[in-house]
Amino acid sequence: MIRFNNDYNHGAHASILQALAQTNDTQYGGYGVDDWCDKAEKLILELSRCPQGKVYFFPGATQANFVTISALLGSCDSVICADTGHINCHECASIENAGHKIVALPHHDGKITAEQIEGEVQAYYNSGEAEYLTRPSLVYVSFTTEYGTLYTKAELTAISAVCRKYHMYLFVDGARMGYGLGAAENDLTLADFGRLADAFYIGGTKCGAFFGEAVVLTQPDMGRRFKAHMKQFGAVLAKGWILGLQFYTLLHDGTYFAITKRADEYAMQIRDAFRQKGIEELVVSPTNQQFVILSQEQARKLGQKYVFEAEGPVDDDHVCVRFCTSWSTKQEEVDQLVADILNL
Amino acid sequence: MIRFNNDYNHGAHASILQALAQTNDTQYGGYGVDDWCDKAEKLILELSRCPQGKVYFFPGATQANFVTISALLGSCDSVICADTGHINCHECASIENAGHKIVALPHHDGKITAEQIEGEVQAYYNSGEAEYLTRPSLVYVSFTTEYGTLYTKAELTAISAVCRKYHMYLFVDGARMGYGLGAAENDLTLADFGRLADAFYIGGTKCGAFFGEAVVLTQPDMGRRFKAHMKQFGAVLAKGWILGLQFYTLLHDGTYFAITKRADEYAMQIRDAFRQKGIEELVVSPTNQQFVILSQEQARKLGQKYVFEAEGPVDDDHVCVRFCTSWSTKQEEVDQLVADILNL
Amino acid sequence: MIRFNNDYNHGAHASILQALAQTNDTQYGGYGVDDWCDKAEKLILELSRCPQGKVYFFPGATQANFVTISALLGSCDSVICADTGHINCHECASIENAGHKIVALPHHDGKITAEQIEGEVQAYYNSGEAEYLTRPSLVYVSFTTEYGTLYTKAELTAISAVCRKYHMYLFVDGARMGYGLGAAENDLTLADFGRLADAFYIGGTKCGAFFGEAVVLTQPDMGRRFKAHMKQFGAVLAKGWILGLQFYTLLHDGTYFAITKRADEYAMQIRDAFRQKGIEELVVSPTNQQFVILSQEQARKLGQKYVFEAEGPVDDDHVCVRFCTSWSTKQEEVDQLVADILNL
Amino acid sequence: MIRFNNDYNHGAHASILQALAQTNDTQYGGYGVDDWCDKAEKLILELSRCPQGKVYFFPGATQANFVTISALLGSCDSVICADTGHINCHECASIENAGHKIVALPHHDGKITAEQIEGEVQAYYNSGEAEYLTRPSLVYVSFTTEYGTLYTKAELTAISAVCRKYHMYLFVDGARMGYGLGAAENDLTLADFGRLADAFYIGGTKCGAFFGEAVVLTQPDMGRRFKAHMKQFGAVLAKGWILGLQFYTLLHDGTYFAITKRADEYAMQIRDAFRQKGIEELVVSPTNQQFVILSQEQARKLGQKYVFEAEGPVDDDHVCVRFCTSWSTKQEEVDQLVADILNL
Repeated sequence: MIRFNNDYNHGAHASILQALAQTNDTQYGGYGVDDWCDKAEKLILELSRCPQGKVYFFPGATQANFVTISALLGSCDSVICADTGHINCHECASIENAGHKIVALPHHDGKITAEQIEGEVQAYYNSGEAEYLTRPSLVYVSFTTEYGTLYTKAELTAISAVCRKYHMYLFVDGARMGYGLGAAENDLTLADFGRLADAFYIGGTKCGAFFGEAVVLTQPDMGRRFKAHMKQFGAVLAKGWILGLQFYTLLHDGTYFAITKRADEYAMQIRDAFRQKGIEELVVSPTNQQFVILSQEQARKLGQKYVFEAEGPVDDDHVCVRFCTSWSTKQEEVDQLVADILNL
Repeated sequence: MIRFNNDYNHGAHASILQALAQTNDTQYGGYGVDDWCDKAEKLILELSRCPQGKVYFFPGATQANFVTISALLGSCDSVICADTGHINCHECASIENAGHKIVALPHHDGKITAEQIEGEVQAYYNSGEAEYLTRPSLVYVSFTTEYGTLYTKAELTAISAVCRKYHMYLFVDGARMGYGLGAAENDLTLADFGRLADAFYIGGTKCGAFFGEAVVLTQPDMGRRFKAHMKQFGAVLAKGWILGLQFYTLLHDGTYFAITKRADEYAMQIRDAFRQKGIEELVVSPTNQQFVILSQEQARKLGQKYVFEAEGPVDDDHVCVRFCTSWSTKQEEVDQLVADILNL
Repeated sequence: MIRFNNDYNHGAHASILQALAQTNDTQYGGYGVDDWCDKAEKLILELSRCPQGKVYFFPGATQANFVTISALLGSCDSVICADTGHINCHECASIENAGHKIVALPHHDGKITAEQIEGEVQAYYNSGEAEYLTRPSLVYVSFTTEYGTLYTKAELTAISAVCRKYHMYLFVDGARMGYGLGAAENDLTLADFGRLADAFYIGGTKCGAFFGEAVVLTQPDMGRRFKAHMKQFGAVLAKGWILGLQFYTLLHDGTYFAITKRADEYAMQIRDAFRQKGIEELVVSPTNQQFVILSQEQARKLGQKYVFEAEGPVDDDHVCVRFCTSWSTKQEEVDQLVADILNL
Repeated sequence: MIRFNNDYNHGAHASILQALAQTNDTQYGGYGVDDWCDKAEKLILELSRCPQGKVYFFPGATQANFVTISALLGSCDSVICADTGHINCHECASIENAGHKIVALPHHDGKITAEQIEGEVQAYYNSGEAEYLTRPSLVYVSFTTEYGTLYTKAELTAISAVCRKYHMYLFVDGARMGYGLGAAENDLTLADFGRLADAFYIGGTKCGAFFGEAVVLTQPDMGRRFKAHMKQFGAVLAKGWILGLQFYTLLHDGTYFAITKRADEYAMQIRDAFRQKGIEELVVSPTNQQFVILSQEQARKLGQKYVFEAEGPVDDDHVCVRFCTSWSTKQEEVDQLVADILNL
């Protein structure tokens, strides 16, 4: 069976294994106070053109999301996101468990708009009971979204402007940052995130690392007591250098961008095959996740050879499924899948 | 500089790097549902003679502590531990942040007794306001303790009996489990923890793994919704097999026990050297952590060549410091240190 | 100005003032352990035909809601309610602050159906990630709803059946219980709530008391540690007898039911007046809250003499407003308002 | 039986009942936005010479404590208090439940000193892991303390100075404020609290009101989102004017101060009687709570006629008990008790 079910079914890029082997006899300071984390932080701030920022390395994305959000907000602050947002659907209410209401707005292809956000904020201020309600204080978006779609520079600029107008933080979940940046039609850069967002992260787990997410706080004062918050939720790894090492290794020579771009290209090859067969896409995704509507028979056939993710029935005869390429996907795997699609 | 400052200043045992390299082209299921986690769980339950139990792999020890405790308790339940307990002193109030009061009892060499615990519980029931107070519902002990000391089988059996008498959970923090089991004077086994405790863990981070702690719930029903609790706090690693792989690799051929036992033996060599020089120990520790009282001058001299942990001043002329051996410590490093101690 | 803005703009029924005066020289035990609370509890359990239950007196409704819900649920349990539910819209995220996700279903005239609830629960179980998600564990409905509407016996019976089928609690917010029971078209009784719900409350604040809500837990074991939960959130009043006294005084001779029924009748007189003038209702409400669509001019005119609650604009020329009668509303106030409506 | 068991066994001062009766036909705005609350706030700020402050009325003291503390602190902030502090011993871990660690310092007659506090703070900053620990951010003291003792102006000034030096809030639990101010040897005034504390409250429940505590925030910006925090925990009473009315009624003509001062004088009469009989006090208390050591026989005898609070055994033959006078205590009750003590 060949796995196209997700982008975290594989270990790490070979360069990381090599770096771990080379440094395995070296002793380091604990809790992320070490050379690797320093070098990785500097590099990430350079790439984001954000010298005033700070970088914090988290073991996983759920932690990166809820710890960052709960460190930035008080208990009377709420979070705006798309109803499809990962924090709203797949993280076991970790945001609510940390005390914050999520205000979920109806998504369009996984995205929300500046207009929707402004409408929600105005509803709060016009409610007549704003003094007694949780205030929308942070907007959470994902790049790429749950449907593999992308915010454009114009869209993110508009959202950022609304956030600044109403003193809300803009936080970008970048668990799949590499796949977003690598898409042919993308017009955003890490420097744009450094400029438009208050916090964002560069995903490692799904983009070539064994594990880890690099959270960037773009404003100098946001990090006050941030590491204590991380520690309180167990997000400070004793051997923190393992995280710094992975990010430095992937980023310093562009490997991170190359391997995720390649995965996007593979996804386009698969999309083309589905299109040739007249198989409908749920949404048009320019990145590594492709959601398509298969007949039960098509799903059964492809399921004999490939692992992919069931997204639920569409009608009695059709199901929606996700095919996901990854930094670790190989051309020959894509070629086989393309051939098998065309033979459906 | 040679680091004797802690037992997590080094990567991982070579066998883990090797296993990661061998499997780096293999695809796995996510979130700990994979063969490595299955094999590691079976092995751990066998070693603990606890076939009815369940094993959960955590990225780190703070998470293992607060997630397990908060999964087992309600918001009106409190936790009894030594005032020196790691959860009371070094985890940024993660237990309180999860809503639970810690009732800290005065320690004796890092330990508390069954009598102290029973006294505290009786004070609760005799308070006249038990209906309105948080109930002591879990006892947290560490093996080894913060001072490197060990509970004996008799002591742990007595504590376990008090816990069962008053329907409290017994939870053993085993971040340094290997160093406890490896001590010459230890009389406890994993099977004893499987029998006497309701939950305990086998530490990986400090005992040869890159990272990871294996939590054992010894009673069949305790795990209800446990994985959801883990997920809610971001403690379920996407590539969970990396944790299973590390524990299986270390445990299946006894490496885990051998490398920690050796570290204990090295610590005894260092202790002997200090004793020969008439240097006082803060407590008598049979394991890898040695707390000694140095003169300022002795500390300065050793500090030129070794990194060790300052524990604070004892008087104007003396400081307490910790020398810590590790699974990664080498005989030649110990030989040098011993020689330098004897030359003080 | 005459206030029709809400049902809590007035002190308490005269009989309560009288009872307070008569007992003001009596000494009582603290924290709700007293004769008044005992008598009130017995009476309420009789009225609810729920001898196995327990009654707890809360100072206010927000406390009654979030403390009860958080006492019954664990942190991985979520709450299903209408998107218009009071806990979702007007209580400053107190449920989320206590750690629970609210799953808000689209309302129909302020109500949700057994079918909607079952659909949501099935979506959870069919999600493929139920093990990692918060489980719907409690259904919250209000009687009367935010729109003054009522669940019928058939509707509540169906909801109760779904709750029992899926092991969820059914919790009825009865802040306006009196107005619901008093409506001409109501077919539910306190005994029905005692039989169909796991928890419900009889509102005092809006129904003739100075303050207070009487929460009934209908199953014998639900109250385990309940008073500790109340205490933890400051919901146990030192002079608890004041709450017991108020409920006993209002309930023992039927005053509670009479004064709320009268308020419903007044509301019907007002509704009739609006209907005579062809003024549209937002929803058809059989109870003390009437939501009508006024022209700006109509609203301005009535606003010169009456206080009512603005619910927001409907279109450029119309607004929705709420007229609310109360246990304290007088016939002459209603007569005036009716006359003024007819003269619009 | 005559109750000397506590100071909340009685309804309210007659003037409050009268005010409630007089206003029972008046309609008011909800949630504390009304004339009574305005008048009471102005009066309290005048008495406290704190024109820049804000006053918030709470139903009860546990709420006043945990809601104020949690509104002022973030989740990585801890609270310093005496180990005997009410929040540490009698409020069911409401502070921890709100996420904050309590650092309990050993008390001296129920009090802690500026030196102790500074020592604790310095230990935090010198810990070497301050970045990862909860920061002491608020000092909680009670006036009067759990033992009825008083901070002097010198002591409170010193504590206030330490708090300002280390950017910590000083919060004074004034549930028994009246009894403190009324003591013969007291040298503190409300204006001192307004000047030295960041937050304090004037207790109503124990000092003549049916219920209620008036929290003063002395700095203009502290109240940001404070009412939302109150609402989130259900501490905003719908009929808020009942609280404002009680405080205005008790304070505007000095009744509050007179009735509590009288209770202190009664307590001194009782203390004198115990002293005449050679009965030992646990601590020397100048206020309405008297803790004395009785023989079992003495306790039995007095227990036939009086209700008082058992504090636990002192030795096989002796128990510690509390006799508590109250604003509602009558001279003849004291006379009887004094006579019976002298006849022991």
